[in-house]
Amino acid sequence: MNTGETDEHTIFARRESNARSYCRSFPAMFVQALGATLTDGEGRRYIDFLAGCSSLNYGHNDPDMKRALGEHLASDGVAMGLDLHTPAKEAFLESFERLILSPRGMDHRVMFTGPTGANAVEAALKIARKATGRTNVIAFTNGFHGVTAGALAATANGYHRGGASVPLSHVTRMPYAGSAGSVDTADLLATMLANPSSGIDRPAAVLVETVQGEGGLNVASAEWLRRIAGIARDHGALLIIDDIQAGCGRTGSFFSFDGMGIDADLVTMAKSLSGFGLPMAVVLVKPAYDVFGPAEHNGTFRGNNHAFVTAGVALEKFWANGAFKERIAERAEQLRGRLSAIAAQVPGASVKGRGMMLGVDLGSGDVAADICATCFEKGLVIETSGAFDEVVKVLAPLTIDAETCGRGLDILEAAVIEHAGANRQAAE
Amino acid sequence: MNTGETDEHTIFARRESNARSYCRSFPAMFVQALGATLTDGEGRRYIDFLAGCSSLNYGHNDPDMKRALGEHLASDGVAMGLDLHTPAKEAFLESFERLILSPRGMDHRVMFTGPTGANAVEAALKIARKATGRTNVIAFTNGFHGVTAGALAATANGYHRGGASVPLSHVTRMPYAGSAGSVDTADLLATMLANPSSGIDRPAAVLVETVQGEGGLNVASAEWLRRIAGIARDHGALLIIDDIQAGCGRTGSFFSFDGMGIDADLVTMAKSLSGFGLPMAVVLVKPAYDVFGPAEHNGTFRGNNHAFVTAGVALEKFWANGAFKERIAERAEQLRGRLSAIAAQVPGASVKGRGMMLGVDLGSGDVAADICATCFEKGLVIETSGAFDEVVKVLAPLTIDAETCGRGLDILEAAVIEHAGANRQAAE
Amino acid sequence: MNTGETDEHTIFARRESNARSYCRSFPAMFVQALGATLTDGEGRRYIDFLAGCSSLNYGHNDPDMKRALGEHLASDGVAMGLDLHTPAKEAFLESFERLILSPRGMDHRVMFTGPTGANAVEAALKIARKATGRTNVIAFTNGFHGVTAGALAATANGYHRGGASVPLSHVTRMPYAGSAGSVDTADLLATMLANPSSGIDRPAAVLVETVQGEGGLNVASAEWLRRIAGIARDHGALLIIDDIQAGCGRTGSFFSFDGMGIDADLVTMAKSLSGFGLPMAVVLVKPAYDVFGPAEHNGTFRGNNHAFVTAGVALEKFWANGAFKERIAERAEQLRGRLSAIAAQVPGASVKGRGMMLGVDLGSGDVAADICATCFEKGLVIETSGAFDEVVKVLAPLTIDAETCGRGLDILEAAVIEHAGANRQAAE
Amino acid sequence: MNTGETDEHTIFARRESNARSYCRSFPAMFVQALGATLTDGEGRRYIDFLAGCSSLNYGHNDPDMKRALGEHLASDGVAMGLDLHTPAKEAFLESFERLILSPRGMDHRVMFTGPTGANAVEAALKIARKATGRTNVIAFTNGFHGVTAGALAATANGYHRGGASVPLSHVTRMPYAGSAGSVDTADLLATMLANPSSGIDRPAAVLVETVQGEGGLNVASAEWLRRIAGIARDHGALLIIDDIQAGCGRTGSFFSFDGMGIDADLVTMAKSLSGFGLPMAVVLVKPAYDVFGPAEHNGTFRGNNHAFVTAGVALEKFWANGAFKERIAERAEQLRGRLSAIAAQVPGASVKGRGMMLGVDLGSGDVAADICATCFEKGLVIETSGAFDEVVKVLAPLTIDAETCGRGLDILEAAVIEHAGANRQAAE
Repeated sequence: MNTGETDEHTIFARRESNARSYCRSFPAMFVQALGATLTDGEGRRYIDFLAGCSSLNYGHNDPDMKRALGEHLASDGVAMGLDLHTPAKEAFLESFERLILSPRGMDHRVMFTGPTGANAVEAALKIARKATGRTNVIAFTNGFHGVTAGALAATANGYHRGGASVPLSHVTRMPYAGSAGSVDTADLLATMLANPSSGIDRPAAVLVETVQGEGGLNVASAEWLRRIAGIARDHGALLIIDDIQAGCGRTGSFFSFDGMGIDADLVTMAKSLSGFGLPMAVVLVKPAYDVFGPAEHNGTFRGNNHAFVTAGVALEKFWANGAFKERIAERAEQLRGRLSAIAAQVPGASVKGRGMMLGVDLGSGDVAADICATCFEKGLVIETSGAFDEVVKVLAPLTIDAETCGRGLDILEAAVIEHAGANRQAAE
Repeated sequence: MNTGETDEHTIFARRESNARSYCRSFPAMFVQALGATLTDGEGRRYIDFLAGCSSLNYGHNDPDMKRALGEHLASDGVAMGLDLHTPAKEAFLESFERLILSPRGMDHRVMFTGPTGANAVEAALKIARKATGRTNVIAFTNGFHGVTAGALAATANGYHRGGASVPLSHVTRMPYAGSAGSVDTADLLATMLANPSSGIDRPAAVLVETVQGEGGLNVASAEWLRRIAGIARDHGALLIIDDIQAGCGRTGSFFSFDGMGIDADLVTMAKSLSGFGLPMAVVLVKPAYDVFGPAEHNGTFRGNNHAFVTAGVALEKFWANGAFKERIAERAEQLRGRLSAIAAQVPGASVKGRGMMLGVDLGSGDVAADICATCFEKGLVIETSGAFDEVVKVLAPLTIDAETCGRGLDILEAAVIEHAGANRQAAE
Repeated sequence: MNTGETDEHTIFARRESNARSYCRSFPAMFVQALGATLTDGEGRRYIDFLAGCSSLNYGHNDPDMKRALGEHLASDGVAMGLDLHTPAKEAFLESFERLILSPRGMDHRVMFTGPTGANAVEAALKIARKATGRTNVIAFTNGFHGVTAGALAATANGYHRGGASVPLSHVTRMPYAGSAGSVDTADLLATMLANPSSGIDRPAAVLVETVQGEGGLNVASAEWLRRIAGIARDHGALLIIDDIQAGCGRTGSFFSFDGMGIDADLVTMAKSLSGFGLPMAVVLVKPAYDVFGPAEHNGTFRGNNHAFVTAGVALEKFWANGAFKERIAERAEQLRGRLSAIAAQVPGASVKGRGMMLGVDLGSGDVAADICATCFEKGLVIETSGAFDEVVKVLAPLTIDAETCGRGLDILEAAVIEHAGANRQAAE
Repeated sequence: MNTGETDEHTIFARRESNARSYCRSFPAMFVQALGATLTDGEGRRYIDFLAGCSSLNYGHNDPDMKRALGEHLASDGVAMGLDLHTPAKEAFLESFERLILSPRGMDHRVMFTGPTGANAVEAALKIARKATGRTNVIAFTNGFHGVTAGALAATANGYHRGGASVPLSHVTRMPYAGSAGSVDTADLLATMLANPSSGIDRPAAVLVETVQGEGGLNVASAEWLRRIAGIARDHGALLIIDDIQAGCGRTGSFFSFDGMGIDADLVTMAKSLSGFGLPMAVVLVKPAYDVFGPAEHNGTFRGNNHAFVTAGVALEKFWANGAFKERIAERAEQLRGRLSAIAAQVPGASVKGRGMMLGVDLGSGDVAADICATCFEKGLVIETSGAFDEVVKVLAPLTIDAETCGRGLDILEAAVIEHAGANRQAAE
């Protein structure tokens, strides 16, 4: 059996909820996955430019993580550990401190939340509100932070918001960098917060992504982010960087805000944190704001030790020195060059994003969907993002080799030209 | 190193958030886990009457699940699959249909949510609201449904609610079965909903646990549950059974409501669903209410294939016939007998719960805490529950053998007598 | 022109909003009003058992108030005074202190709110929340407190709540005295608040009517009210008595809770406070809870000096000694006697209410509506109340003479017998 | 007795709530009021540039209204009429239709709400939400719409919002015309609403003042208002003009938006609507949106017939022809000329407002307060507005004669020069 969606007799059609989505666009049965490659039940191979929505930054089934997890399993290591102390958790924390936090001078504590990004966002919002005694949170247009009620209030996408079927509260929306034409959106935020009659209640936090993954690969400049950070500080609000999709190397460095001079009070992480695609999420929190009492925010699966095992390997393998960062930079350059060339062939198209979080804005969700469908037929898994699903988004594993990456881009280029190329447009 | 909490030099004290909790009561470093036994770094063994808060119903590192997961890993099976079709997911769904749903005549669809119980509850509430066009949800005193904003609104515990630091909305609270003295709480609900001027807005759903795990092992009778189900139906509200803690055999059968004649519209499951303690959660939803559009409720880790692998094994191994159910019944009988005898030695104490979800109500959180601390010293991991943490809760793996179970109970009995025995009380 | 509703050519049909209501039941053009009598454009007289929903307790156009208002007007006294000091306000406050507050040992301050009952309720809720730092308010089934968003959250009636078209927040609903069969509703409240896992957030206030005017003339006993007051105090919640409809003598004494041993922290008053039916509302607030800053709750018309003039006269004329109270008691006895006799002729009917806030519960909104319609035809203006509009409510001016009252009751009796009498029922 | 605030022995200090405000700035006992003049208990006269915050546009105790009200009173006309038909209501409606609505081609219906502006705003918001099935409302920075919970959510002032002590919901805040530097705020609104991922839920209504009275006399241009109206229409949102302070001639014509080509779906009116300062409020609503059922939004005092009497006289006396409009224009010219001259003497000061809703922005709340205090000493009642109370606001009766107006301006000019004049600044 190859396709799920088309065959009404499958168990998926019969028993899986209508909420399923990716399997509709990519109706194969995926039996194997390695690095940047997926293989279906008929042996067909696909290059993976989706990478679990950036939760597989190190590719599928990294051999070192696989080995470590196999050993953990074989030795009857704790799998499910609530928040008990285990060697796997200890090792992760030590690596995280040594390789990530200490070199950056970050004294943040690590809060293990329920193992979803949304849960980390929920925890971060609660922390900010408890720490400040305020309820309002500033979030931005096109931001995506999850779909549980607290996180969803901060998520901007109307389709997802509608799913709540209740009004969403305690969030004030401001335009993201560059989202409102020539308006200086940082200035606007500053102006609004400086006015005691602006009608915007004093914020507990400003919640921001440095690159909006779901929102269309919108990039905030370091300067804009520093200004936002300064405005937050001036008004007694905590700065929460949601680095769930942009973190773990996706934009070129471990944190997407590395080197920007930004001092985040809280950082949410998930997706590629475990390295292996296993569920894991944390909130990094400055000691001064580590205000939860024991289990005040809890969750059964906050001690997913399998994920801790692979997460520890990921840190040691990829972040012990600067080699991986250089490798990402090379691949990012390759991607940006090729994508720019592709975009140049489409009237009005442009490249968006940063690092290996890049895409081509086609200006049309229909066109972008057609491109992705054609890519899939040709062996490339790739998806769209953006308010109108108008951006074809390349989220290849950061570990992809140049050749595979190039082949994926070849497929993409052909599909773009087929559906949106200048010649085609002229012909119509 | 053995203890985390007492040693300030550990990475846990230095870098883990204050929100950590179990590790404070059980400050060991747990290096290995098998069946009902945990082993710490010094080789000390503990009987596990906590079992990951009922997420390890089949014990730690079940060998069959372990083998299957190891094979999946070795073959580079998909680990992280978003909601793509995979053999592991297919196998789980087929087993779930064949062994669980079909025999019960349940035509429910399976919605894979983010892999936490809270996420499943959030999804279920959203579904009920979307399906009915109403916003209000009836939830009960002492109920626990998670701590993300939507689920937390339904959770009753004041400590957890306070963590939100915002008012929680769209939930009406009603007293649970037996929670208000002699009041017939089902009658009360019926009376309130029948009155158009009761001030209770028409509910989208009634959300209920059959046994309240966190709330103190309060048991609702089958009759009460049927009446609640009938009231929900009469008023056009969906019935959501939260079977996250009570399900997967904990109360004696797969669903905690098996054989009660209850037709739940939505069922939330998590904890022991994966069998191995890996993060996994689903909502079972009747086709008529399967109203989400594609990805309207989404989440990166909703395709945790490792969990699907072990979940499939768990179903085939334990639920293909009635043997496991019989075994649970035996152990439940052992437990109830011993716990009754223990309670009989404490003035005012009583046994609460159902199946292997049992405990002793000591009437005092301090006494219960002392008992658990003494147990831990003697090699038994056990925790409290209840509004005042006054119930010592036995959540042994369902697979525990009679002898190990008996040894755990011996430890418990000694601790109870030490801290709460009749003689002790008389002496004071 | 006599009727508005039936003639589509009237300005009312053409230009007044569909929200108009009483004029649909009583489609006359009322040109004159004196005491307990209304006169329409064709000279027809009606006995008024509606009395502006208890805002005309002293009857229409009381001659002494009229004289005082005429003099104020003639002398160019301030009409609209914001919250500036004026002799009319001074005189009202002095009378209110001397005749009402001081004799009862009440040290409450008077907050002049916007001149509607709803505005007073909104202010009282805000005060309680600010004073306690809590958000939740306990309100009761069948309670009515107004239809602006804050007050409406406390109002129980589903029709009115639906008008908000948004979920209403920050209120927990509990069953009112006697509203839940044999349940001891005070006990239930105590039980719920004593349980830290009840899911009911600690309340800022308990808001209660002593007799529910709109809710169907449900009467809370003094003992029940004292218990509610005690529970509120035990849990740090303020007690707000909403005396808007039941106050100003309606139940037999100035406050409806006089002599009950109840120490209300906040009392809301409106309706008959001005004596003349002019818009005026206040919150009485204990000094300890007088926490608003200047104009923190404001409103243009909070200084309606015409109302202050007549309110002052009303206090001096009716409350300087016990004569009026005696007179109300006599009339209440007349009413209760006759209504009991009327109810006795209808199977299942009963008298409800207290003082001159009385009615007959017919058990059917349709029957009650028919009775009121027939009364109107015969020259009696009378309305229904209750969750099902099943109670015919007598709210005659407290000043009505025995003879007029008797004639009104004659009309009512005939209508009741016509539509609901035992003979009629037997015949069907 | 002259002053209230300074004398602690007064009844006001003893019994009136701390929420009182104007009486703190103007601590006189006002015994008489006529036209633009107030007289205190010692015979001292004050020119009234406050005019009941624009609720006395026709001055105090207009003789024609006084006469009509006196006659109504003498004839025992209905004072309090719920929403029953009365000649006073009929006459008002007929005048309103003939003189106001019909000449403008407005087919709006008149909804009589509780007699406060806040109540009218609450009703308008409910109507918009019911009519559209949406919950969100767009409101603007510096807007003021009242302090009851629903209206307060739309009010921008932080001090008033804080009084709620609960988070305020269901309103999205956007910057008002000119409030965000060079940002084209209409463009910004359009951009935000056009983006389905803006995070701004589709609005039921856009609620706007044409001139922000409390917010600092900020003026929206006709073009901006037309654009806002167009944006609302494009997105299926109703346009609500809050004309409570700016209406009834204050800006030069009956509605503040007359002649602007704006087609408001709902208009809220109160303040000067009764003409005499008596409590009265209405919502004008297009027939298509007249969606309330009978009494779905109700209120005891929605039939204040004394107000209807004076309101009817006001319409016939001032709006039967263009004379009054011309007179306002003359006085507005006088005011603007003098205020411009005054502002010219203060570095950085400027004139704000439109028609006879004018003021001088001093750039400092302290300076503005000093000016008002000095004015009061010299016999002029005048107040501030703005986010920082930095604007001295002239709200003289529209009927004020040139000479009295000039004297008031003389006092103001002297006070401004004393506290903020260029010489003074230079000297410091």
